[in-house]
Amino acid sequence: MSAKFISFTAQGRSSYGMWRDDGVVDLAAEFPHWPDLGAVVASGGLKDLAKAAVGREASHPHDAVRLDIPLPRPEKIICVGVNFPDRNAEYKDGQAQPTKPSLFIRFARSFVGHEANLVRPPESEQLDYEGEITIVIGKEGRRIAPEEAFGHIAALTLCNEGTIRDWVRHAKFNVTQGKNWDRSGSMGPWLVPFTNAAQLDRITLTTRVNGEVRQQDNTANMMFDFRFIISYVSTFTTLVPGDVIVCGTPTGAGARFDPPIWLQPGDVIEVEADGIGVLRNGVEDEV
Amino acid sequence: MSAKFISFTAQGRSSYGMWRDDGVVDLAAEFPHWPDLGAVVASGGLKDLAKAAVGREASHPHDAVRLDIPLPRPEKIICVGVNFPDRNAEYKDGQAQPTKPSLFIRFARSFVGHEANLVRPPESEQLDYEGEITIVIGKEGRRIAPEEAFGHIAALTLCNEGTIRDWVRHAKFNVTQGKNWDRSGSMGPWLVPFTNAAQLDRITLTTRVNGEVRQQDNTANMMFDFRFIISYVSTFTTLVPGDVIVCGTPTGAGARFDPPIWLQPGDVIEVEADGIGVLRNGVEDEV
Repeated sequence: MSAKFISFTAQGRSSYGMWRDDGVVDLAAEFPHWPDLGAVVASGGLKDLAKAAVGREASHPHDAVRLDIPLPRPEKIICVGVNFPDRNAEYKDGQAQPTKPSLFIRFARSFVGHEANLVRPPESEQLDYEGEITIVIGKEGRRIAPEEAFGHIAALTLCNEGTIRDWVRHAKFNVTQGKNWDRSGSMGPWLVPFTNAAQLDRITLTTRVNGEVRQQDNTANMMFDFRFIISYVSTFTTLVPGDVIVCGTPTGAGARFDPPIWLQPGDVIEVEADGIGVLRNGVEDEV
Repeated sequence: MSAKFISFTAQGRSSYGMWRDDGVVDLAAEFPHWPDLGAVVASGGLKDLAKAAVGREASHPHDAVRLDIPLPRPEKIICVGVNFPDRNAEYKDGQAQPTKPSLFIRFARSFVGHEANLVRPPESEQLDYEGEITIVIGKEGRRIAPEEAFGHIAALTLCNEGTIRDWVRHAKFNVTQGKNWDRSGSMGPWLVPFTNAAQLDRITLTTRVNGEVRQQDNTANMMFDFRFIISYVSTFTTLVPGDVIVCGTPTGAGARFDPPIWLQPGDVIEVEADGIGVLRNGVEDEV
């Protein structure tokens, strides 16, 4: 089983460390030069964390910590739009398959961690889910060749790219405002180190709502694969360690049902990918 | 004349301070708890900087410093699309005036400071300018009422929201990749403290290329005014001190000429607004 690196809050204090079956190993005090897990990734320090945890007793039981999003403040969180062919067909607007990915940006504050509730704001009932595999950059690069791309990934995680659908189309272009409601999505539960192409190349990605499968596809079907995404994005912007790329969702978001099925308070959404884990969140109304 | 707060590099070292007629006053050493100008703004410290500079000799002559973008790493740089009516008419696609602003995000690394060259990448000849007034948030808020909005602004600056036009339309939605080429735009030259609505309400904004006026309009004509922008954006995301909002450009970008007029190496672009200053940049080919 792969190592699981986490950011968490325990007794009101932010920290980082590892998630193990026997509990959480708190490692921040061992590495005072790394204030958060972002700094660890930026310094290529995940291996040092894993080594420091060996033989150490768990610091906290699982239920004594709140998991936070794995990297508290990435320089960039870049999201890929429509990225599985069935999903795109759902848009039924007569347009050909795109040749380039749609890209948009989310702020870290639009995400909560594992097991926290997504927040439905009073301005809309259209809170929707999108389960996605998420990569974390570990090595700086610009104009990265596709065949070199996997060498720039430090770790993997999951994202529920929660969306306020009616606000996505407020403007003619750009989905920014529907994709950036505070605490409308989630990321986590942890970072799994990326060491092998098989961790990405043929992975089943599933989203369940209250136990019912709503989205399920395989990364082998992605319109823009992970190597292409890294290469394309790094054409225009320098990718740096800690950057996060959310790689697009399968068909089956709630918006595509007829009538649409929006998330409701009390729903439980699970995003699962082989070898990464399960990201689980409830829903609550903003108060 | 208003105080001018700057981020700069002198003798290879990043610092911050004030720009005066007699030179640059280096103030970072006075405020070791504020590592950069972003931390100063986050702590409401611009007044402390101004006070510390009184009676102090200039630390560097102007030509011994390189001005950097005023805030090195804002949590958010939110840009408003089409925002002056004439400019929108240029899109001539038969659509009615939008009722909500188009919003997109830029990364700090897509900007250079005053007097640095914008970089034209080998992938495109379509480097274009867009002059814009830019606000810096000084007070946290969510769902800020329009009539309270100006109380959340700490300072003003200017932006040349440089764009790689053909990459703006790579995807059906979202302009992200045309708006985020490294060093394709500029921000600065400095922050001017915002203390009075008259600094924004009826301001002439001009963009010149090689001395020729290409864009000129008045903030009184904005489709979405500053108060609305702050209120609207803060509906979905919490604005925090140091956040930057780039508020939209007048008609006259190079893309709208027939044939289009793209920026070339050697061109000089100046963005000017009453009471803020002149942001000047050259253009160079990426090497």
